[in-house]
Amino acid sequence: MAVYTEVSEAAAQALLDHLHLGPLQALSPIEAGIENTNYFVTACGGRWVLTLFERLSHAELPFYLGLMRHLAQQGLPVPAPCADAAGHLVHTVAGKPAALVQRLGGRDVVAPDAAHCHAAGAMAALLHMHAVDFALAQPNARGADWREATATAVQPWLTPAQAALLQAEVTHQRLLLASAEAAALPQGPVHADMFRDNVLFESGAISGVIDFYFAGVDHWLFDLAVCLNDWCVDMTSGRLNEALAQALTAGYAEARARLGQPVTGLEWRLLPSMRRLAALRFWLSRLADWHMPREASLLRPKDPAQLERVLRQCVEQPWHPQEGAWA
Amino acid sequence: MAVYTEVSEAAAQALLDHLHLGPLQALSPIEAGIENTNYFVTACGGRWVLTLFERLSHAELPFYLGLMRHLAQQGLPVPAPCADAAGHLVHTVAGKPAALVQRLGGRDVVAPDAAHCHAAGAMAALLHMHAVDFALAQPNARGADWREATATAVQPWLTPAQAALLQAEVTHQRLLLASAEAAALPQGPVHADMFRDNVLFESGAISGVIDFYFAGVDHWLFDLAVCLNDWCVDMTSGRLNEALAQALTAGYAEARARLGQPVTGLEWRLLPSMRRLAALRFWLSRLADWHMPREASLLRPKDPAQLERVLRQCVEQPWHPQEGAWA
Repeated sequence: MAVYTEVSEAAAQALLDHLHLGPLQALSPIEAGIENTNYFVTACGGRWVLTLFERLSHAELPFYLGLMRHLAQQGLPVPAPCADAAGHLVHTVAGKPAALVQRLGGRDVVAPDAAHCHAAGAMAALLHMHAVDFALAQPNARGADWREATATAVQPWLTPAQAALLQAEVTHQRLLLASAEAAALPQGPVHADMFRDNVLFESGAISGVIDFYFAGVDHWLFDLAVCLNDWCVDMTSGRLNEALAQALTAGYAEARARLGQPVTGLEWRLLPSMRRLAALRFWLSRLADWHMPREASLLRPKDPAQLERVLRQCVEQPWHPQEGAWA
Repeated sequence: MAVYTEVSEAAAQALLDHLHLGPLQALSPIEAGIENTNYFVTACGGRWVLTLFERLSHAELPFYLGLMRHLAQQGLPVPAPCADAAGHLVHTVAGKPAALVQRLGGRDVVAPDAAHCHAAGAMAALLHMHAVDFALAQPNARGADWREATATAVQPWLTPAQAALLQAEVTHQRLLLASAEAAALPQGPVHADMFRDNVLFESGAISGVIDFYFAGVDHWLFDLAVCLNDWCVDMTSGRLNEALAQALTAGYAEARARLGQPVTGLEWRLLPSMRRLAALRFWLSRLADWHMPREASLLRPKDPAQLERVLRQCVEQPWHPQEGAWA
C-alpha cells in the first residue's frame, strides 16, 4: 500500500459527493503495503478503504474490481467496491484512477497457528472455485514475462551467489512453464498475493480477504504455493513449518474436494517446483522495490533477504504434503 | 427475528454446499427480533446471517434482497445477500424460503447520544437517495391497508380508552393519506423499521444497517418518523427528547440537501402527523404480536404499552424541528 499521492480532504469529499455517500468524517493514510496509495475513509454513509492506483492503468482495473464484486456477491468476505450512479467502479481522485471499497472487520494474524493455516488454505480454494465463472480474464501481471524482465533489471545489485541463484531459477521457471505438465495444470483467476497481511480474522474465522490488485489468471497451484511460502514459513530461516504446511494444504485440498474439483496428482507433483516460482516472484519484487524505490511520502520497502532465504529453502528442501492425511 | 423453525446443522451445511461456501463451523440461533427465523452461520468461506422467511412469500423476497444488494453495491453498509451460481438470492432451507447475508461488524447502541442520532438521520437520507433508482417496487407491507385490518383484529383485547385512541388514529390516518398534501410528499423504497437495534456502529461510525424485511415503497417522511419515534424517545414516558430529535432531523436534512433533494416545507409541516402514523404502525404490530403470538421455539414479544405511550405523546405533544438550525 504505502502513500505515494497525498489525498486532501477536499479530494476525498469530492469522491464521496460523486458517490452520494455523505460528508467526510475522517481520512487517514495507511502505511502498510507497497504498491498503491491507501486511505481509510469514514463518512455518514459508512467506512471504506480508498485506493489510488499508482501504476495500474484504467484498462486493467475492471478486472480487479469486477473480480472483487463477483466474489463478494457470492458471499465471500471480499471487499465490495462502491459503484457510482452509472455503475462504474473506477473513479478519479487526485488525477489517479481510484476505487472505494468496503472496509471489512477483523485483523490479520502475524503468527498463524494450524487452524489459521487450515482456514487460509480453504479460503484459497473457495476463491479459486468462485472465480471460475468470472467473465473477465487478465494474466498475472507478475507472471513469467515480468519475472524474466525484472531478473535482468536487478542484476546490478546482486552478489555473484545471488546472480547464480537467480539465473538458475529463471531457467527452472522457463523449463517448468514450457512443459506439457504445466500446461495441464488447472488455472483461473487467483489472488496471487494472499499473504498473512491480506487475510483478516474475527472470532477465529476469516472475515476478509483484501488487496486483489495483484490478482490475475494463473495456475491455482501458484496461488497455493504463494500461501505456503508466507503462512507456513519461518521468515528468519526461510524454512517451511511442516505442521502448518500440512494444515494449509489440507484445508485447500478438502475444500477443493468438497467443491467437486479435487487436487490432482499432477498438482501435488508440481507443488515443490511451483513454490520455487512463487518465491522467485516475491524475491524479485522485493529486490526491485529495495534497489529501485519509487518516490513516496510514506513507504517502507521490505528486506529482500527474507524471500531469498525462502527461495533457497524451496530449492534445497522440497516439501511434499502427506496426501493420505485428508484423502 | 426469533426462532420459529429449528435449522439443523445438516440443513445449514446443505445451503453452504449449494453456495460453495465450505464446511460449516458454527451455527447459533439469534433470539432478537420478531418476524423471521435467524441464525449466525460461520464456515470456511466467512460469516453470515441466515434468515428463514416465516410469513413472506417467495414472490416478495426479490424486492428485499435485491434492494439490499442494490444499496450494498453503491457502498452503503447494508448486508449483501449471497447469490448462488445461477445468480439467485432466494434459497430454500427446512422447506422455507431463506437468504444468507453478509454479517457486518459493529454493535447496536441502546442509549444513543446526539452524534448517534445525527448519523442515523443522515443514513436514512442516504438510503432514500440510493434506493430511488432501484428497479423493483413493492408497497410497505405494514401500510395503511394492513393497519386498518389489524386495528379491527386487535379490538377484542383493547380497553375502552385504547379503542378510542385507535379509532381516532385510524381516522387521522385515513384523512391524512387521502389528502392532496400527502399525495405530494416524495416517496420511494424506505427501510420502514430503522430502529436502534437495526443499526450497527463501530468506532463511532455506522458499520451496518440490517433487517430490510419490512422495507417497501412509502413516503420518505414515514421513515424519518419511524426513526424519530425510536431513537429520540424515552420509552418509559414515550416523550420525545428534543435535543436528540433535533440532531437526527438535522442529520437527515443536511444529507438530503447535500444530495440535491432538500427536505420540503410540506414534509416539515406533515412531520407531526406522520409520526402518529409511524407510532400507530408499531403499536398495532406490538398488539398483534402480544395478543396473537405465533408458535415459536424462541420468541419474546415486546410490550405494546411502550408504543401506546409514544403514540399518545405524538398526538398530545406534536413536535416541529427548528428548521433554521441547519438551513
